[in-house]
Amino acid sequence: MRWIYCTIAAATIVGLTAVCGPSPAAAASKKPAAHAGISQQSQACLQCHRSLTPALAEEWRVSAHAGKGVGCYECHRADKTNPAAFEHNGATISVIVSPKDCGGCHQKEVDQQKGSHHAKAGEILASLDNYLGEVVGGSPAVAVGCFQCHGSTIKVLANGKLSPATWPNTGIGRINPDGSAGSCSACHTRHRFAKAQARQPETCGKCHLGPDHPQVEIYQESKHGILWQANKSQLNLDAKSWKPGVDYTAAPSCATCHMGATRTQEVTHDVGDRISWTLRPAISTKLNMVVFDDLSKIDVPEGQPLPKVGDEKKGGDGKLRKVTQVFTWQDRRARMQDVCSACHASGLVTGFYKQFDDLVDMYDDKFAKPATAIMSELYKAKKLTPAPMDEKLEWTYYELWHHEGRRARHGASMSGPDYAWWHGVYEVAKTFYFHFIPEVKEVAGEPLATELLEKYVYSQPAHRWLKEGMSKDQLQQIQDFYKQRYGEQK
Amino acid sequence: MRWIYCTIAAATIVGLTAVCGPSPAAAASKKPAAHAGISQQSQACLQCHRSLTPALAEEWRVSAHAGKGVGCYECHRADKTNPAAFEHNGATISVIVSPKDCGGCHQKEVDQQKGSHHAKAGEILASLDNYLGEVVGGSPAVAVGCFQCHGSTIKVLANGKLSPATWPNTGIGRINPDGSAGSCSACHTRHRFAKAQARQPETCGKCHLGPDHPQVEIYQESKHGILWQANKSQLNLDAKSWKPGVDYTAAPSCATCHMGATRTQEVTHDVGDRISWTLRPAISTKLNMVVFDDLSKIDVPEGQPLPKVGDEKKGGDGKLRKVTQVFTWQDRRARMQDVCSACHASGLVTGFYKQFDDLVDMYDDKFAKPATAIMSELYKAKKLTPAPMDEKLEWTYYELWHHEGRRARHGASMSGPDYAWWHGVYEVAKTFYFHFIPEVKEVAGEPLATELLEKYVYSQPAHRWLKEGMSKDQLQQIQDFYKQRYGEQK
Amino acid sequence: MRWIYCTIAAATIVGLTAVCGPSPAAAASKKPAAHAGISQQSQACLQCHRSLTPALAEEWRVSAHAGKGVGCYECHRADKTNPAAFEHNGATISVIVSPKDCGGCHQKEVDQQKGSHHAKAGEILASLDNYLGEVVGGSPAVAVGCFQCHGSTIKVLANGKLSPATWPNTGIGRINPDGSAGSCSACHTRHRFAKAQARQPETCGKCHLGPDHPQVEIYQESKHGILWQANKSQLNLDAKSWKPGVDYTAAPSCATCHMGATRTQEVTHDVGDRISWTLRPAISTKLNMVVFDDLSKIDVPEGQPLPKVGDEKKGGDGKLRKVTQVFTWQDRRARMQDVCSACHASGLVTGFYKQFDDLVDMYDDKFAKPATAIMSELYKAKKLTPAPMDEKLEWTYYELWHHEGRRARHGASMSGPDYAWWHGVYEVAKTFYFHFIPEVKEVAGEPLATELLEKYVYSQPAHRWLKEGMSKDQLQQIQDFYKQRYGEQK
Repeated sequence: MRWIYCTIAAATIVGLTAVCGPSPAAAASKKPAAHAGISQQSQACLQCHRSLTPALAEEWRVSAHAGKGVGCYECHRADKTNPAAFEHNGATISVIVSPKDCGGCHQKEVDQQKGSHHAKAGEILASLDNYLGEVVGGSPAVAVGCFQCHGSTIKVLANGKLSPATWPNTGIGRINPDGSAGSCSACHTRHRFAKAQARQPETCGKCHLGPDHPQVEIYQESKHGILWQANKSQLNLDAKSWKPGVDYTAAPSCATCHMGATRTQEVTHDVGDRISWTLRPAISTKLNMVVFDDLSKIDVPEGQPLPKVGDEKKGGDGKLRKVTQVFTWQDRRARMQDVCSACHASGLVTGFYKQFDDLVDMYDDKFAKPATAIMSELYKAKKLTPAPMDEKLEWTYYELWHHEGRRARHGASMSGPDYAWWHGVYEVAKTFYFHFIPEVKEVAGEPLATELLEKYVYSQPAHRWLKEGMSKDQLQQIQDFYKQRYGEQK
Repeated sequence: MRWIYCTIAAATIVGLTAVCGPSPAAAASKKPAAHAGISQQSQACLQCHRSLTPALAEEWRVSAHAGKGVGCYECHRADKTNPAAFEHNGATISVIVSPKDCGGCHQKEVDQQKGSHHAKAGEILASLDNYLGEVVGGSPAVAVGCFQCHGSTIKVLANGKLSPATWPNTGIGRINPDGSAGSCSACHTRHRFAKAQARQPETCGKCHLGPDHPQVEIYQESKHGILWQANKSQLNLDAKSWKPGVDYTAAPSCATCHMGATRTQEVTHDVGDRISWTLRPAISTKLNMVVFDDLSKIDVPEGQPLPKVGDEKKGGDGKLRKVTQVFTWQDRRARMQDVCSACHASGLVTGFYKQFDDLVDMYDDKFAKPATAIMSELYKAKKLTPAPMDEKLEWTYYELWHHEGRRARHGASMSGPDYAWWHGVYEVAKTFYFHFIPEVKEVAGEPLATELLEKYVYSQPAHRWLKEGMSKDQLQQIQDFYKQRYGEQK
Repeated sequence: MRWIYCTIAAATIVGLTAVCGPSPAAAASKKPAAHAGISQQSQACLQCHRSLTPALAEEWRVSAHAGKGVGCYECHRADKTNPAAFEHNGATISVIVSPKDCGGCHQKEVDQQKGSHHAKAGEILASLDNYLGEVVGGSPAVAVGCFQCHGSTIKVLANGKLSPATWPNTGIGRINPDGSAGSCSACHTRHRFAKAQARQPETCGKCHLGPDHPQVEIYQESKHGILWQANKSQLNLDAKSWKPGVDYTAAPSCATCHMGATRTQEVTHDVGDRISWTLRPAISTKLNMVVFDDLSKIDVPEGQPLPKVGDEKKGGDGKLRKVTQVFTWQDRRARMQDVCSACHASGLVTGFYKQFDDLVDMYDDKFAKPATAIMSELYKAKKLTPAPMDEKLEWTYYELWHHEGRRARHGASMSGPDYAWWHGVYEVAKTFYFHFIPEVKEVAGEPLATELLEKYVYSQPAHRWLKEGMSKDQLQQIQDFYKQRYGEQK
């Protein structure tokens, strides 16, 4: 199975395709010579890189790109105006291939990606999470941590090289030297860029994992993930059309539900298109979506006024833009339910969403809203300094919603019971009752502590058990069960 | 590889098989027309569901059921006495297919499942775990958490639909509207119901994972799991007969050891048949098994009187029944060791069990019994309220045995050293010495604290290190080693 | 696909190969009769073991060993001087096959393994970790925990059997009855010993996982691990030559980078050959390597004097030996970068190492050195007893470096952002600021606490944020971002 470079054949191709080399016009339009072998310039690249980086070259050789004549130079060539452009053995190239470059051939996908949260992932640079990273942790931790998923803002050094604090980086919201946002190779790993690979759950798991959003772990626990493991080889992963119920059956991957084509929907590269809840903040919200004429998008929380198509409205950057499309959260949910229906009868889908919504509402009302309100009152009463994360209670509250509360909600959203409960609500409850409340008491002091806890916690029936305990009957019932289940414990 | 419904061929089959449609008699006995194409009624179901839920229909089409003429209606048809039965386009069906339904063809498997702990998993509804879920967490957390593994008690609403608080649900101990307990599709995922899938470790990992019983993680760490990954494609997973050493070699999955046929044993659908220890309670016990004439079973802890075959004895529900079989824990262990022996020489098996038993005994004696005794004394002394989980010490104790202590024991039981130690005994010791004991001191106050700790902890040689420290020699030895291993640390 | 033992054919082979049975001379040299069928003695073993342990026999039958005439007896035969030797149906054998035995045919690999850290893994017996295991945990936890990865010191009982406290065991640093150190079957799982299996990441994950060194989890999160999952079936895993960029492309496994042959390097069985940092201790060090004439090796931390080839120097056991080779940490790094270059251009490799080094330096300087210095001062001031792990602060410090600090550093070393940050530096910072410092204050008391914290912590600019908080501008920036990202939170 060892592969051999057919150098004689390759030389022949060079001869045949010499006319297809990038003419100045082609370079300007960034369209590669289609289907007609590899350009002379890319052949020149390969001359060295076949031996310098042989696996890189071979990964490309087996790619769809190679089959269609898209070689090294077709993607890496750069405009001299690109701050990251440099001369390399006579060619002007950029190490970084940005969505702007990919858009030369894949404009539709890049347009979809533009308005997505993925493209905005680099904006976290100005957030609390970044304060945590840069100040509490330290810049080097940001480079190998945050940036690797969110994307760095690539810096070009005085010597024209990329700053190693920001490169290598394939974070999905990378801010590129050419001004574009995103990194297609976050999912379509270079240099094969295989559809089959991008469709696998592990691809999404590069970032969607861990204590704060264990989506891939939840998926792996779910029936979806179990069937993926069982049937992976039968899923037609290489196919161009990849519709559940048409091109493959069980099981769906992340891509199936959040991005994939169905019998009525096209592929989307905005992973938010089918998401009706945002479960990222402390308190969850259903989100309507507004699309502008420049393809940018904003989310408008349920309950806030929605513009109509044709209206002018401020975009994400505060500038006025024309609204071209409006999707309510119900529209977004309907799109997801259309995916569900390839495999599931409608009663199951409805029941699933009811269980999911109920969990989110319960988490919000019982834990997130009281905790958030108490934190806000403590800041107002100057019981906490305005600086974030410099007091223990702030970490307790942060993990309550950012880690545990998300795990509970994500667990419910993708049918991972262990995450909904043990990693989720169980931890939320433990933290809320046995860490958050005691720490609030200490930070607030009396009479504020009692006042806040009465107002936000104990007045809620769901919290009364903590003060009232259990009835004798309840106690007996539990003790009897325990004896039967576990035997008498010495 | 795209599949096409051969509608013309299907129409022909309808013609050929019309005589096989469910006669009233057949419907009553719930036996499908065997091997003779698909019934007219099921064809009618497919008429819509091929387009409504195409992947569901296709999953069924590639199933063994389809090959044997078992269609939609053969499983979903329902007796009008079934509270979940409803009219659907002229047929009386139930969304839920219960073990009673599956037993029409698979009686033996359903009989085995009847006496198993799996079938009783729904009984947790009355337990402390459920108090935790329902009261401390909240009902919606139970629906997406506990119920998804343990099984819900399915409720039929006034309008005849299934209550979304209880459905969808494939929990293995689900209590069905027809009174049966269990859900075959917990493991045999609909609508393909593939043997190959049920034999994969991920199937069991749907529930047997996480902080309180990470069996699948332990398996994955073990040599068994490593070889599974390496040799998965050679394991003959689709075969009818699937005996280790006969039909396949390395590696075993969960199903191999706990359920699978061997050269001398048949398949069992009671996963407890080969288990000699219960590691679920705070304190472990070896369990003998008593089987009754109605196929129900109870466990009798080692040391308690065992009935003889023919005796009458109270079953799990307190009713007197006739004993038909008695298996000691040694019998159960012998069954498991028979599985081991397909791959391992007898010395290895004996050594493994010695190491496993020693770990369990050590955990019990050093940590679980003292902690349990102290908790019991604190309740008696009214230092703790009778209500469970309303005091921090109760959570500390709970995690000590329910999470950490189980991980240690399960890690030892399936050769996952990281779980036996780092996630197990290391955590048990940290919690016991640096959380449990300090909290006991606070809760008990003096002189009770000293009295309890002397009596249950410090009088035990294994705990003396905490008071006596180390000898100078021991200290020097450790320091020397550290210098050599890690170098001098500034 | 069921396999059948061709007993007639086997009988024929016995006839043909009878002349190849182990002559006394062959037995002495421990060389099996090569390529010439199976020896008479091994046939005798199989006579029983085909039915006693059929899967064991079959695993061997499909192995390369079987194909080359290496049977049961060729590996298990033992010298009567071997303390673990015993008579078994007329043959003198040992259950344990040690590196000394494997070296009969695989001398080169055993020689490489001899000097490795793997071979020394059993030395932990005298370390703090072992104190933790033996005393704080308990011996049975060591047997099923520590020993299973580090290796036990196999004890032979008076009756000639192996002590079950030490066997079964495939720990990589096992100390064998014949005096050799190591267990080849730690990675080359018996009885197939397949190259393909040893090359899989799960093999290393048996031990390199978990809270204290989650290497396999980091790999699985990384692009390397993602591509492994996507392309596993195309990796030519069975091939004799397995060079990245020659025999296979994406993706590398653990074996590829740490052990595998490249275009310019041979396979090595010393996994430390290409490692330039040690990230195991509290404080990281770059390590030079000295090789002695008996193939043993020592690491010499950067900054300490390095011997020259031909010098005499104390080896790991304190005895003087002649130095035969010296590799600087730069040499070791160059070897690893040679692997990287099969797939990656040089700029990416340089940038990766810069990010990695920066993270390690930051962790060392900001967290590890201050914490280590403070602990040392507390011991000197007798604020802590000399006994290890009997005070809570010792556990806090231990987890800071041994668990969290390693996760951060390992995460950076293998491109697992979640481990570098959330499981790593985030946890390090939380522990350092909100557990370690408060506990130091309590343990040290005033004025020592203030003195130590000023000297080692607050005087460092990286820690000033804790006292100085944030500027109004910074605060506003964060609040604005939060509003935009998460909406106004009620």
